[in-house]
Amino acid sequence: CDEAARARAEARNDRLTKPPRALGRLEELAIWLAGWHGTERPEIRQPQVAVFAGNHGVTARAVSAFPAEVTAQMVANFQAGGAAVNQLARSVGARLTVHALDLDRPTADFTEGPAMSEAECVAALATGWDAVEEGTDLLVTGEMGIGNTTAAAAIAAALFGGTARDWVGRGSGVDEAGILRKLEAVDAGLAANPAARDEPLEALRCLGGREIAAMAGAIARARVDRIPVILDGFICTAAAAVLARAVPGALDHAVAGHQSAEMAHRNMLLKLEMDPILTLGMRLGEASGGTLAIAVLRAAAACQSGMATFEEAMVTG
Amino acid sequence: CDEAARARAEARNDRLTKPPRALGRLEELAIWLAGWHGTERPEIRQPQVAVFAGNHGVTARAVSAFPAEVTAQMVANFQAGGAAVNQLARSVGARLTVHALDLDRPTADFTEGPAMSEAECVAALATGWDAVEEGTDLLVTGEMGIGNTTAAAAIAAALFGGTARDWVGRGSGVDEAGILRKLEAVDAGLAANPAARDEPLEALRCLGGREIAAMAGAIARARVDRIPVILDGFICTAAAAVLARAVPGALDHAVAGHQSAEMAHRNMLLKLEMDPILTLGMRLGEASGGTLAIAVLRAAAACQSGMATFEEAMVTG
Repeated sequence: CDEAARARAEARNDRLTKPPRALGRLEELAIWLAGWHGTERPEIRQPQVAVFAGNHGVTARAVSAFPAEVTAQMVANFQAGGAAVNQLARSVGARLTVHALDLDRPTADFTEGPAMSEAECVAALATGWDAVEEGTDLLVTGEMGIGNTTAAAAIAAALFGGTARDWVGRGSGVDEAGILRKLEAVDAGLAANPAARDEPLEALRCLGGREIAAMAGAIARARVDRIPVILDGFICTAAAAVLARAVPGALDHAVAGHQSAEMAHRNMLLKLEMDPILTLGMRLGEASGGTLAIAVLRAAAACQSGMATFEEAMVTG
Repeated sequence: CDEAARARAEARNDRLTKPPRALGRLEELAIWLAGWHGTERPEIRQPQVAVFAGNHGVTARAVSAFPAEVTAQMVANFQAGGAAVNQLARSVGARLTVHALDLDRPTADFTEGPAMSEAECVAALATGWDAVEEGTDLLVTGEMGIGNTTAAAAIAAALFGGTARDWVGRGSGVDEAGILRKLEAVDAGLAANPAARDEPLEALRCLGGREIAAMAGAIARARVDRIPVILDGFICTAAAAVLARAVPGALDHAVAGHQSAEMAHRNMLLKLEMDPILTLGMRLGEASGGTLAIAVLRAAAACQSGMATFEEAMVTG
């Protein structure tokens, strides 16, 4: 973050034609953007929404309301332009990129051992790292992966403590029996992968999935390139939380786009001390909530950069 | 509202490629829009943001952090494109119209009697009624008027009961002494205008102002023309509340765009049973929060109208 640009943005903000802080969160967001863009007048010209897809061995435990083949079917839907995120990305003027990671090769069932080998995890991280496009000035990461709320709940338990019960929710709408299977799977995964509790990247490798690792890779790359990031919901935040637990400050360039209706997301955001921009009861994943939040960041930047000062407008301040 | 179109929209929504209700509030908003637009695939093509400005005699009681001449200065700022609402309207692709109502003729000081004569109030309502443009398919109303949080607090007390203390807040940032003067002014206004407690339109005439009456006129016109409305913050909601108390169902075509940081707005929304779309700590007025919420409605409509169904996308539902 460019502290000088941030300070100039704050000074400019103080002179704009409005009572101090009357734009509330928009002002904070604009000043935060200014720091990462290195200018007192930030603009969002090339927002990128990167959606990563992966398949999960833990689906063998019947943890989802949908069969595993839906992951590939939804990737085709993204590519054809028919999914929610396609409409949302167009609505907010963002470019959507879709990255399917070895869908025909699910991760191993983490109730029996690590979901990924080190090589597999590194390859997925690299896919995310490489997915960030030249010129992107705001990044949203999201995912598609049947079974991945189970993986995210396991990661959260490993990173933040607690048991399955603290982190398991309905996901895409599993029934009561499915919830019980999710609880069992998460507790079994934690027991089968003791290293996951000790080391954030081991939590990612042992309990995560390729799309989750790819999101972590993309978010880390954005940090290095000073590209601000909007996180999506529960699964994306679990990916980001791995980075936060591994390296202090790793999410300084990120904001929470929304609070998901998935029960444990709120708690995860509290643990990360992140205040969601939107709370609209969304629980779709596929970057949908984060993408909608682009509209708020764009508006925040527009006010910061386009408003007249009291002097310019000859308004009595 | 076209109940048949609404039912068709619900049926379509159930077939879209997402788990049921996974888009949360967006789905409710899309189906509500569908009812008012009379189509299962609503689109927002011509959103209008109408900002009304008026001056208030009660400013003689030193109730605001800014002098009364700022109303006209800010109207000039709107016309020159330098205010927050200009940037927000451009950011969400809305047309902004600005309507100054007799700024050189403030309302009477309502602590001494009615703020407006019947003729003045009707003329202001008509200005709002006529401000809604041909082809507008979504309307946001907002305001500028130094002193008007005092007027809105007085209207709220008249409509919903309670005393000044229940409805007075900091407005554009008045100090403690100013808050005391606002409290005194509101209680004096209620005492000087006993009819305001009995009749919503008398509350508007006796305690309101021209820009508040104009917002009420525009919102009523939109109801007749089946144009959905996004309310802005505290003052706009006070104008809308007059209609709601006068005619049951008068706000069926309206949603609350945001919850203002002005203390009593939350309570007013609770009384009206309206759930705000955004809560971003904004407290600027000038339609700013409602305008930003256009982005959410546009996204909701885009999902409802543009997403593929499970059959179309060959996704296993």
